[in-house]
Order: sequence, then C-alpha cells, then structure tokens
Amino acid sequence: MQLGMIGLGRMGANMVQRLMRAGHECVVYDTDPKAVADLETEGATGSSDIADFCAKLRPPRAAWVMVPAAVVDTVIDQLEPHLQAGDIIIDGGNSYYQDDIRHAKRLHAKDIQFVDCGTSGGVFGLERGYCLMIGGDTQAVEQLDPIFAALAPGAGAIERTEGRSGDYDRAELGYLHCGPNGAGHFVKMVHNGIEYGLMAAYAEGFNLLKHAGVGRADHAVDAETAPLSDPAFYQYEMDLARIAEVWRRGSVVSSWLLDLTANALQGDPELKTFGGRVSDSGEGRWTSIAAIETGTPAPVLTSALYERFTSRGEAEFANQILSAMRYQFGGHHEKPETPARG
Amino acid sequence: MQLGMIGLGRMGANMVQRLMRAGHECVVYDTDPKAVADLETEGATGSSDIADFCAKLRPPRAAWVMVPAAVVDTVIDQLEPHLQAGDIIIDGGNSYYQDDIRHAKRLHAKDIQFVDCGTSGGVFGLERGYCLMIGGDTQAVEQLDPIFAALAPGAGAIERTEGRSGDYDRAELGYLHCGPNGAGHFVKMVHNGIEYGLMAAYAEGFNLLKHAGVGRADHAVDAETAPLSDPAFYQYEMDLARIAEVWRRGSVVSSWLLDLTANALQGDPELKTFGGRVSDSGEGRWTSIAAIETGTPAPVLTSALYERFTSRGEAEFANQILSAMRYQFGGHHEKPETPARG
Amino acid sequence: MQLGMIGLGRMGANMVQRLMRAGHECVVYDTDPKAVADLETEGATGSSDIADFCAKLRPPRAAWVMVPAAVVDTVIDQLEPHLQAGDIIIDGGNSYYQDDIRHAKRLHAKDIQFVDCGTSGGVFGLERGYCLMIGGDTQAVEQLDPIFAALAPGAGAIERTEGRSGDYDRAELGYLHCGPNGAGHFVKMVHNGIEYGLMAAYAEGFNLLKHAGVGRADHAVDAETAPLSDPAFYQYEMDLARIAEVWRRGSVVSSWLLDLTANALQGDPELKTFGGRVSDSGEGRWTSIAAIETGTPAPVLTSALYERFTSRGEAEFANQILSAMRYQFGGHHEKPETPARG
Amino acid sequence: MQLGMIGLGRMGANMVQRLMRAGHECVVYDTDPKAVADLETEGATGSSDIADFCAKLRPPRAAWVMVPAAVVDTVIDQLEPHLQAGDIIIDGGNSYYQDDIRHAKRLHAKDIQFVDCGTSGGVFGLERGYCLMIGGDTQAVEQLDPIFAALAPGAGAIERTEGRSGDYDRAELGYLHCGPNGAGHFVKMVHNGIEYGLMAAYAEGFNLLKHAGVGRADHAVDAETAPLSDPAFYQYEMDLARIAEVWRRGSVVSSWLLDLTANALQGDPELKTFGGRVSDSGEGRWTSIAAIETGTPAPVLTSALYERFTSRGEAEFANQILSAMRYQFGGHHEKPETPARG
Repeated sequence: MQLGMIGLGRMGANMVQRLMRAGHECVVYDTDPKAVADLETEGATGSSDIADFCAKLRPPRAAWVMVPAAVVDTVIDQLEPHLQAGDIIIDGGNSYYQDDIRHAKRLHAKDIQFVDCGTSGGVFGLERGYCLMIGGDTQAVEQLDPIFAALAPGAGAIERTEGRSGDYDRAELGYLHCGPNGAGHFVKMVHNGIEYGLMAAYAEGFNLLKHAGVGRADHAVDAETAPLSDPAFYQYEMDLARIAEVWRRGSVVSSWLLDLTANALQGDPELKTFGGRVSDSGEGRWTSIAAIETGTPAPVLTSALYERFTSRGEAEFANQILSAMRYQFGGHHEKPETPARG
Repeated sequence: MQLGMIGLGRMGANMVQRLMRAGHECVVYDTDPKAVADLETEGATGSSDIADFCAKLRPPRAAWVMVPAAVVDTVIDQLEPHLQAGDIIIDGGNSYYQDDIRHAKRLHAKDIQFVDCGTSGGVFGLERGYCLMIGGDTQAVEQLDPIFAALAPGAGAIERTEGRSGDYDRAELGYLHCGPNGAGHFVKMVHNGIEYGLMAAYAEGFNLLKHAGVGRADHAVDAETAPLSDPAFYQYEMDLARIAEVWRRGSVVSSWLLDLTANALQGDPELKTFGGRVSDSGEGRWTSIAAIETGTPAPVLTSALYERFTSRGEAEFANQILSAMRYQFGGHHEKPETPARG
Repeated sequence: MQLGMIGLGRMGANMVQRLMRAGHECVVYDTDPKAVADLETEGATGSSDIADFCAKLRPPRAAWVMVPAAVVDTVIDQLEPHLQAGDIIIDGGNSYYQDDIRHAKRLHAKDIQFVDCGTSGGVFGLERGYCLMIGGDTQAVEQLDPIFAALAPGAGAIERTEGRSGDYDRAELGYLHCGPNGAGHFVKMVHNGIEYGLMAAYAEGFNLLKHAGVGRADHAVDAETAPLSDPAFYQYEMDLARIAEVWRRGSVVSSWLLDLTANALQGDPELKTFGGRVSDSGEGRWTSIAAIETGTPAPVLTSALYERFTSRGEAEFANQILSAMRYQFGGHHEKPETPARG
Repeated sequence: MQLGMIGLGRMGANMVQRLMRAGHECVVYDTDPKAVADLETEGATGSSDIADFCAKLRPPRAAWVMVPAAVVDTVIDQLEPHLQAGDIIIDGGNSYYQDDIRHAKRLHAKDIQFVDCGTSGGVFGLERGYCLMIGGDTQAVEQLDPIFAALAPGAGAIERTEGRSGDYDRAELGYLHCGPNGAGHFVKMVHNGIEYGLMAAYAEGFNLLKHAGVGRADHAVDAETAPLSDPAFYQYEMDLARIAEVWRRGSVVSSWLLDLTANALQGDPELKTFGGRVSDSGEGRWTSIAAIETGTPAPVLTSALYERFTSRGEAEFANQILSAMRYQFGGHHEKPETPARG
C-alpha cells in the first residue's frame, strides 16, 4: 500500500527503505531536501512541502510522522488542513502517551484517525525489523496492517514461546495493537524504562568487575576510600571484553544489550572514546512519573534514571551540602582528588 | 577424558549426561543412591561412597563438586585423604569466591589443584550448554579443557561480535578462564548480581503495565492511594503475555530472561501460582557486599536485592515505625487494607 | 487583625485557637456545624455558610482556606463571588504548587490576591507554633504579617545560627516569604519530601537493630533467608526504646522525628498497634516528580516514597514475576512463609 | 575516678577536658608529645610511652583508647603486657563491632575486661556532651559509670519522652549499656548509617530547591537535559540559607543536622569552599553489609552510601558503558559538557 513518511532521520529513512523493499510505495518529506533526494534515488516519491506531500498521497491517506517529540504538535498542525475524513496520522516517534490522547481527541473531531506507534530497533531496524507497539482504534490499526507487517521483524528463527501453536499471533511477528490511543506509546514508555534498568544493571556489574583489582599493589590508592578489609580478595585483573563475550552463550544474562556491550568492549576495551555523560530522553522520566502517579514501586528503574542525571553533574550541590555538614559536625575537610583508579 | 561428579541434583545430573553425550567417561556419586542408579542406567560408573568414588578415578583425578555452597567444605574434607599430588578438585557450584581462595591455598599445600567454576544455564543447560566462568592455575584449567568444551554451548548460531574473526576464542565457545583462584566465582557472582538487576527491571516494568488501568471505574479504589491527578490517563487494560511476546523480536529489551517471562505469562497470565515471596541465594548479597567494599556504586543491583528481602516481609517493622511516626506528629491512623487492585 | 478560617479540622481549629490567644479576631466556617460551634465557645465568630462567612469579614478580607487539597478548587469557586478587589485568599493546606500558580492567575484577574502557605507542625502546632513557608506578592504577604507572626513559633530558646546577629530575621521567627506564587508550597513540598527521607532513614535503622538477633538460637529460622555467614555476630537483643532515647541527647542524629519515635517506642516497644501500611499524601510524590522533571537526582527521597507504596502491597505482581522467572530458569519453587522473626 | 586516655586527637583531647572539668583524674598518652604536653598544662598527667602510661594508672586500671579503627589492634597489643586481671580497656573509637567480639574474647582469657563504646558528638562534644553507646560485661560497665556520666550530656533541657517519669534512666542522661561486647559499636554503626540517610535526605532536598529555577531564561540551558514539560513551573530563585533557617523552628524536619546546615549556608550560601567529594568512613559500609547479611531492606541507607561513592567518581566506568551502549544501538554520540547550572 501507499504510505507517507515525514521525518527522514536515521529512523524514518531506514523505515522507508524497509517498506519499499517489501513492495510498498512511499511518499517522503523532510525539511532537509537532501534527505528527500537521497530516498528519491532509492525509489521513493519526494515532496517539497507538506501540501505537496499530502497531495501526492491518495485518500484515505496514511501519514507516518517520525520526528522529535517536541516537533510533533507543529507537524500535526501543518498536516491537518490538508487531510480529510478517513485519513490517518501515525506518530511513530517517542511521544508522551498523554499527548496522543490529546491529539486523537482533536483529530477525531474531524474524523481523522490518529494512531500512536512506539518503535524500537534503533540503527539495526532496517535489517532486523522494528518492534512496534500500537495504540488506536481497531479499524485504523487494521487498515495499516500491511505497513506494520512489513516494518516488523516477523517470526524469524527465534524459538517459539511454550504453549503457543498454530498460526502466528501478530505479537509473534513483532507488532502488537496494545489498546486505544496512547496504549502504544505507554507500552513503549515502559519498554524504555525497562531498557534503562537493564542497561544500568550491566553497567554497574561491569564497573564492579573493573574494581576487582583495587587491592593490587599497582593500583593507585584513593585516599578517599576507606581501606579494604582484606586487599587479598581484590587482586583480579578482569578481561571485560571476554567476560561480555562468554556471557553471550548459555548464560541467564544473555541479551541483545549484552551483544552490543560485547561489540563496544571488543573495539575499545577501556571505552576511552566515551566520557560518561549519559543523556536521557523523555521515556525514562515518564516511566518513573507514571510509577509515582499510579503508586507502583519502581526503585530499579528510577535509580537507573537518577544515575544518568548524576553522570551529568546534577548531584554536585547535594554533595557540597554533605561535605559542608561533615565539616560542621566533625571538622572534616574534603580530601583532594587522587589519580583515578582503573 | 574421565571426570568424577559429586552431587547429582538437577545441575550435576544434567552435566553428567551432557558430558557422556560428548563421549566423556563419568564416575558419579551422591548421598542419594537413587540419583547414582539413575545415571548408571545412562552409562555412568556409579560409586557407593567417596572412597569408592576416588578409587574409580584414574590419576591424575578430576573430581567435580556440584553441591550447595554450605556443603562444599565437608565434601572437600572427605575427598582430600583419597587424593594425591596432581589431582584436581573443581567446585562448580555457587560458592563464595573468598572460600575458593582458602580452599586453593589449603589444597596447594598438598599439590592438589583447585579450580573454581561458575556455571550458568539452569535447567536448560543440558540442551543449550552451560556458560562457564573459570578460576585457577593455567595448567589445571588447560588440563580440563575437553570437559569445559563439552559442557559449554559452543559458538552456535549466535551472530559474531563485531571485530572478531579467525578461530573462535574460548569465550566465544561459552567458557572463559577468568584468572587465578576465585576469579571464576567472582565473575559468576557479578553475573548473578546483574541477573537480579535485569529481573527486577522487567518485574517493575510489567508491574507498571499492570497498574495502567488504575483510573478505570471497574477498578477497586484503594483508600491508601493518593487520588490520581487525572484518571483518564490510566484507563488501559494491558495484555501482558502479548507485550512480553512482542518485545522478543527486534526490540532493545529482548533477552533470554524476557523469553522466559513470555513463557510464564503465556501459561498463566495472572501468575496465580506464585505468591511473590522471592528467595535470594548468596550471590546477590555477595555482589552488593563487594560493591560496598570496593567503593563501587551499585544502586540498581542492591535495590533489586532489597526488593527480594521486602517481598518476604522483612520491611515490616520499618513500616510500623513509619506509621508510628505519622501517628505521633499528625494523628494519622493507618487505613485498613482494601481489596487488591489488578 | 481579623482573619477568616475555612476548614476547622485538626489543623484549622488549632490555628484559630493560636491566633485568638495572640489577640486576633477569627471568623470561622466549616461544613460541620459542630466544629463551628466548638470554636464559638472559645470566642470565634461562627458563620453558617460561605456567604455569611464573607459578610462577617471586613474588607480587605483575609480568608484562610485549610481544607484537603482536593477540595481547594471548590472552596475558591464558592468564595470568589463574595470577594472584591483587595481581598486575599490564603491556601494553607497541602496543595500542589502548580495549582497555586493557576489559582493566583485566575484571582489576580479580579484583583483578588492569592497567597500560598505551606504549614508544618502537625498536632503540636497549637503549642509549638507552625513553621510557615509563604508564596505570593510582597504586598499581600506584608499585609498578613501579624497573622503569620502569631502562627509561627517565634525565636524561642533555639540556639542562634552562627553568623546571625542583630534583629531577628523572619526566618528565625519561623516564617518565610519564599517567593512568588507557588514558592511557599514548593518549599513545603520539598520539606515533606525530605521528611519522607528522614523517616525512612530512622525506620530502616531501627529495623536493622530489630534484626540484630537473627543469629540467636531462639530465633525462628526463616527458610527463605540465605544462612548467615556467622550467626555469632547477630546475637543481640536491642532495647529500641532506650536506643531512641539515648540518641536524643548529644548525638548527630537527634531530631524532632527521633523525639517522636522515642515517644512511640516508650509506649509500645513492639508497635503492635500498627500494621505497617503506610499512606502517602501528595507531597512525597510531587517532590519526586519535580526531581525527575528538573533532572535532579533524588534516590533517597524516591526510595522512601517507593517503600511506602510497597508497604501497601503494590509490589506484589512484580514479585510474582520474579518468582515466575526463577521457576522458569531454575525450577525454583517458592518456599512457604515461616513464622515472622522478631 | 582515674581514667587513662590513649589518643589525643580532636575527640580524645576534648573528652579528657570534659572529664577533668567533672573532677576526674586523667593520665594521657599520644604518639605526638605536643598533644600530651597541651593536656598537661590543663591538669592531666602526661606519660611518655605505653609502659609509663600503664604505670601511672592505679589498678584496677581503666584505659580508654581513642584512635583510628585501623590502629586499635596495635594499641591493644602494646597495652596487654602491662595490664593485669581486673583492668579494663575501653575502645571509644569507630571500630567494627565484630572486632570488639574478637578483642573481648582474647582479653577475657587474661581476665582483662573489654568495653566497646560508640561515641557521637563530634567537635561539639566538649560543651554538649557525648552520646555513648556501650557494650560489654555489666560489672565492667558499672565500674565505669562515673566516667560515662561525666562524658554524657545529662538530661539537660530536652523535653521528657511521654510516659517516662521518676528518676532518670541512664538513656535519658545520654548513655546506654546496649548489651554484651560489640553491642555498643553495633548501635553506633547503625547510628551512623542513619546519619548518612538523614544527611542525604537534606542534601537531595536542598539540591532540588537549587534546581527550582531551571526554567528561568537566565539559566544556562543544559543540552543534556530533556526539555522541561513547562518551564513556567520552574522559575523560582530560592534563598537556601533562609529556608534552612525557617525549618529549624516548629517544622517536622527540624534536627541538629539541619542546624548545622543552616550554619553552613549562612556563612557560604553557594558552599563554594566545598568541591563535593564526600568521604565515607567504615560505619556506613558496615551498616549496609549488616543489612544485607541479616536480610533487612535498607534502600535509603545504602543509596546514601552509594551517592558518596559516586561523588568521588567511582561510577565513571559504569557511565561509559551506558554511553557505549547508547552509541551501539542508537548511534547516539555523547553531548559535550555545558556550563553548570545554578
């Protein structure tokens, strides 16, 4: 079928390519004409502005928006005048699910459908396919089924879940209609919240392995650290790249994130190209806020989020307060920084 | 080659079978004669006691001990008199790495080798192979290479890590000599610490999805919970089994633990067969203690551990203290329990 | 001066009494006529409805609203038609500071002033005075100064902060104009967020002291708990009431919350009157949400909040997920509950 | 009575002065002769070495050791040959309670008593008195009662706990015999664990107040931070020194640590003299280890500890792992550091 794609960044452009490989027809638009031109050479129909984009789509139109969350409102504002009853807007980016509910309400008033679609897969999606978490009215979601099927990974070689048999459920093909509007991005939000937790678990574990030699004589002693109870127990020099590798096979902690960690450590065992200032996008925050609002304990997911804040220096004043208190009651002066330990 | 196995529980018995399938010869012993007899019918050489077990092994003997951590000391005490210089004891269980260092020192005094081997794989290991994390002297570890190779999963169909080429490294075959004594169990300890964190991340995420409908009218209102800022945003009824399924393909959070979660939710979507009292074995504790001793922040891993303690009621008195304080300063009485929410 | 008070619960009624003791004139209203009558016998001017309440106040009126956060909107709706330019509404309850900004904007359009005032002190405020955190326009706040001064504790016998001299700053008298609208409740919100953290620190500490005897032979062994490395180190039977008492004098952890804990433990050392289901009102949640939105790490404050959620059973499904995973990969069955430990 | 003091640092020297003011006779020793000479001018009996120190004490001797935990073993080794049956050694420092149990066992074999005494009070103890948590045999503790009574704060002006009447309990005078050997330092350990939690609660709260203006136009925008949902809600400029001050009177969060925070912020509102590298001594670590070993959840106390580790850069490699993963799956490059926000 025909699909329009607005936003031809890393994600949008790859998705267009995957759709065209599956035989779908794509009309594309981006504020960067080069991104449009690049996809035209691959067989897409380019467009020069939103009006042109909408004109090149046949009703009922399906316009997939793949732009930063902060820009979605603007793009919908621009699209709306060119759309008519029966058309569908799909927001496939990382939007807040509460915005979906607002968008859907507004567009439904004009009989335009709105579908929210959380999309996971990153730069590997073109080849591996994208995991799609979809929210919206059933009819609209059904109408887009060929598109979702083409973007999703399909059943692949993955072992089937115990108890499942017969025809594949769509969830087994890698896409799922999660519920009414917002449900898709809600599930994607929680997905990313979990992702933060998983990443932090590996990161803390590898960091601990990195510290397994703090008792060694060749180790710079950090004056700040209370002396080890017995340095003999912390004499190891761990090969982190090989440890990541060995865990990939047969172990309980094997995962795609571990595969990626093995890739990273294989190429740069000290990770010297990374300074350790870790950004966070909205989903990790929204997940913790949803946990708080619904009264659901989520200490691991929120700890992971706070670790990212701290990596960017946001705990600094809190730490100064602590030092100030210690000075007040104990006369403790801060100790100077010593050479980092490896 | 020939290997002796002491401890024929779920892990030990499966490992003997996997070794025999690979053509190795196994002498087996367990305090339960039936466990011995069962493996004899599969082709293993049974033994009636430790002395008999050692007599049936040809020097240099290799005796693999696969028993609960608390019993390892006793078994080594029993083995030692029957062993001679050049023999090897392998502790393949979930022992504390600091005990390995102690065991190795003691046995080295008699020229007996000690090898510690963290073993991951669970009930699936017989078919999938076991991920092995090994500590000990290089010569002893080399000597046992055929055993490790047979137990490990091998390279399999898993995509190769970027930047690796040529012959497979042992880590790529699923086993790794991590360093001197204790290193194997140290890596296994951290492995399990990470496992706790990963499990908690999924558990918290699915619990949040379960709470996504707390704004629905059909939901029992919990008098304890502060009212939702806007119930309209928490109206969903999520199909957790399908969500686990869809994440298995193409998503960033795919993993073996997620595969298992999909299995569990497919069979019993409400998990009614589980009450939620979550045990912890030693490794999660040791990981957090190692983090504390080495000054390595591990909030996610330790949060996951504490959640297990709390699941068993161990926070009860702390909560009573909180209620008592609230009553003291605000005259707040505890509210009665209301029907659980779904 | 004259002040009107709407909401004569524990807080509002005590505040009226404290104001009257200081010579102020109070007009009072509550939906419960008995609460009104009680204060009339103490010298307050009662009123029968909001219209009557406003009629009995002399312009420029000062109407203090002391009702649950959920009811503030309704009360303001009822007040507004009876007020005129120059009148002031004070919200002294535990409202969300973002609501203050909304209320102020709406009332300013009619030249009615809005002041938000976070009020701490609980049931002890009548005698000790209330700590007041105030937001709003300077002129309105100045106008109410006699009221704030009467409600606040005053300088009292507390040792003066180093570096302060001369006349007392209002902060030293126990009330502070924190900034424009919302600032008062923002500071009160953070105050309560800190309160959650402080309470949890004591609660966890006393719970640990309670566990200091888990190695004793008279202690029920919990099959769920990994065996202690050395029971000899956990043989104590701590007298928690006396420990709370001794910390009240000369120690770094002395505080008013500790005083209250000592009160509670003195009367009921086992706290048997409390079941341990700990409620949370809005401020703890709002504090964590503000931390997340501003990118400020607050792991202690949020952990304290999540502990309360968990005390009410909200982690149950997460724990079932953990048990289900453990069963899947390791064949682990849950162990039955054993008699609680003390 | 007569007491010997070994270790004349900030704590030991002040304690000697407080004892002499109460009429006790002190024999003092330190490896630094100047510290000895200083106290001699105040009336203490100096000594030139351990032998001399013991010779100047009349049997049954009472020797108080006030040295760093790491030196206690050495000092006891030096004392032992000069002591006889009936003498008492008191360890008043911050020792690990498990070491007390070891020390007591060894000294009891020679009929020398050992008393462990956790001492809180910091640099203010000379004037305010010290809160004492004592472990050991009842007879020895009774024998030292005049010393403990003189060091402790006494009942003072603090309001009596509800339900207490008649003669003051020793706990009300600021010292407590907590149980057999180790009990004193166990209680002190938990005391300091709580202290870490309390300090972190204040530090996080003040840091959040510091971030209350992140929506202001004059605020450097941090490219790393997800945009605020609504900057209008974060426009405040909080006066932290005054907020600390106002909370000191009548509020639920008033405490001695808050008094000290007010002191610090009054003198240096930006805390520019502190870099924010926060040391930790042993007790915070031991508290968390005890929580883990006894299966007691302590997320707040352990979070507070990990925040200190992180303040010293120990999370750096974990953060690099996170950035490496993000680059792998999403092609995300780290963003450069931007000017700090205030």
